[in-house]
Amino acid sequence: MSDTLKSQIAEQFGTPCMVIDMDRVEANIARAQALCDAAGVANRPHIKTHKSPILAQMQLDAGATGITCQKLGEAEVMAAAGITDILIATNVIGAARSGRLAALQRQLPLKVCADNPVSLDAYSSAAQAAERPIDVLIECDTGLERAGVETPAVVLQLAAQIKNDPWLNFAGLLFYPPIDGWPATQVFFNRVNQGLAELGLQPTIVSTGGTPNMVNMDQLVGATEHRAGTCIFNDRMMMAAGMASLNDCALHVYTTVVSRGGAARGILDAGSKTLTSDAGGLDGYGLLLEYPNARIHKFAEEHGFLDLSDCDPRPAVGEIVRVVPNHVCVVVNMVDQLVMVRGDTIVDVLPVAARGLLV
Amino acid sequence: MSDTLKSQIAEQFGTPCMVIDMDRVEANIARAQALCDAAGVANRPHIKTHKSPILAQMQLDAGATGITCQKLGEAEVMAAAGITDILIATNVIGAARSGRLAALQRQLPLKVCADNPVSLDAYSSAAQAAERPIDVLIECDTGLERAGVETPAVVLQLAAQIKNDPWLNFAGLLFYPPIDGWPATQVFFNRVNQGLAELGLQPTIVSTGGTPNMVNMDQLVGATEHRAGTCIFNDRMMMAAGMASLNDCALHVYTTVVSRGGAARGILDAGSKTLTSDAGGLDGYGLLLEYPNARIHKFAEEHGFLDLSDCDPRPAVGEIVRVVPNHVCVVVNMVDQLVMVRGDTIVDVLPVAARGLLV
Repeated sequence: MSDTLKSQIAEQFGTPCMVIDMDRVEANIARAQALCDAAGVANRPHIKTHKSPILAQMQLDAGATGITCQKLGEAEVMAAAGITDILIATNVIGAARSGRLAALQRQLPLKVCADNPVSLDAYSSAAQAAERPIDVLIECDTGLERAGVETPAVVLQLAAQIKNDPWLNFAGLLFYPPIDGWPATQVFFNRVNQGLAELGLQPTIVSTGGTPNMVNMDQLVGATEHRAGTCIFNDRMMMAAGMASLNDCALHVYTTVVSRGGAARGILDAGSKTLTSDAGGLDGYGLLLEYPNARIHKFAEEHGFLDLSDCDPRPAVGEIVRVVPNHVCVVVNMVDQLVMVRGDTIVDVLPVAARGLLV
Repeated sequence: MSDTLKSQIAEQFGTPCMVIDMDRVEANIARAQALCDAAGVANRPHIKTHKSPILAQMQLDAGATGITCQKLGEAEVMAAAGITDILIATNVIGAARSGRLAALQRQLPLKVCADNPVSLDAYSSAAQAAERPIDVLIECDTGLERAGVETPAVVLQLAAQIKNDPWLNFAGLLFYPPIDGWPATQVFFNRVNQGLAELGLQPTIVSTGGTPNMVNMDQLVGATEHRAGTCIFNDRMMMAAGMASLNDCALHVYTTVVSRGGAARGILDAGSKTLTSDAGGLDGYGLLLEYPNARIHKFAEEHGFLDLSDCDPRPAVGEIVRVVPNHVCVVVNMVDQLVMVRGDTIVDVLPVAARGLLV
């Protein structure tokens, strides 16, 4: 990394600017695929991190079996780009979504998720409108208290509803196990499996999720695939989780020091409208590569406030620095494009194609 | 507010959807103008809250003297819409900005701010390229440790640099006093003023800022104008600051309950990519109008996690609820459009025109 690249980025794009190193992106894609291969599960990367059909296609080319989306809008963008194996990992309900879900399901057979009967009814209607039965996974909660059914008994109620509906195919189970909750997830899964067998059902897909959980992927007997998003770019949270080194972090936010109001203070032109207030449980809001002892301790909307007390030397006004963000997924979501580089060379610009499609 | 409007919003736009009530917006604009009038200072609203030239023009029509922008990109959008009195309240430096600053300064006489000599050099070059001297305010810090010069002595050094540069006009001083720091700001200002007189300079503009500070606007002898942003929409932070009642909050995020995994849990389809992780120092991430005892206690990217322990009755899956966000400025920044309503009627769609222009 040379100062020349910094100057080129600042001249061509200005700061703040989000830059991804494609050599690192490719290495991260390969590493995720290798981890899934080694664990004997299929790889279904979550595209919420990058929202780019181009990067999704690179993941598929590297061996992924399909992709995961978190919103209907993301799935629409990916389908429009020609991707055909799409899991939407959430309840897709609401008036504005039902017609679009039907249109997409008519175009290609989707996989959707549900943790309640209202969603199942919505899927049945959409499938009927699309004239194609839809594959449904039941989302299960085994401790994180995110979405998902809390008990095997309720899973089986939903499975029975799916079985009795000609427009719904029972496709399997969706898990997001707590990092230390894989044994409990196994117990939950085994109970569900027994009940499913009694219903004459068998899960084709048993999906687990999360980049930090990639160390556990071989821990659930019966799992068929894994959904990980962040590992394509990595960030400070993944470093804290032991899932990435600094050199695995593919996205840097280039930002300029625009003020040095006091000796121990500095201000970046990247604030909460760029780096976001999602600290991810870490101290400070990002790591400055050039000044690792500087601390982004507070934000204004367009300013990041630096505490330079422990920093020697200290950056000057006008200096460009690179920040590894705490949580890269929400940071990418703030911009309409990323700049792609390889080493010191600017390669191209990558649209964050599925950004801003709230619904 | 009827359930009919909720259904119409959900059908036409889907959730999450950001909706502004124009009756409230107009009342908020009028109230801000009246407060400035009563304090005897001009009103220079900060458009970072709405990023819309249409709303900016409404503020000007109501009596504002000009507008405040926080980024060059915002100023460009406002200028393109025909707004001519623009203050950019930050250091505008960096390679990509200098050419654009010159182009804009050629088009109309800007007011820019500086707290360091590097910015002054950049402004001088841009003004020279534009063939029009540029008005410069010196940003002063009187306790908040945001941007700004910390001592009157340094203000005077910068003022002298401005005086000696034919391309720079000394236009005045920019303050953002702490809510309880107006007496200290007066002391700072008086010292600076004395030194300025010795330099033969006089500030034309003495600008103060912040919606909560509107209670203090008459407290700085010599102040000429005030910059407030949030008061056009208001939010939970402004309610906590005593600056707004619930009925003054003009923006609601319409969101659907998409999961009820447990008896005391619920999930909204508005997460950190919609409501943002900026809690603004408050408990929870927003107020549910229909269920004020529900607490948004955590986010996934597309999900808001509800603690319904204190909530009776509790919302059902599929129900649409309205959230008053904690910090409306960062929430508006997440979307490309707002839906405008008057009472129960959808009026139009308002582009967040200056969103996403990072530089």
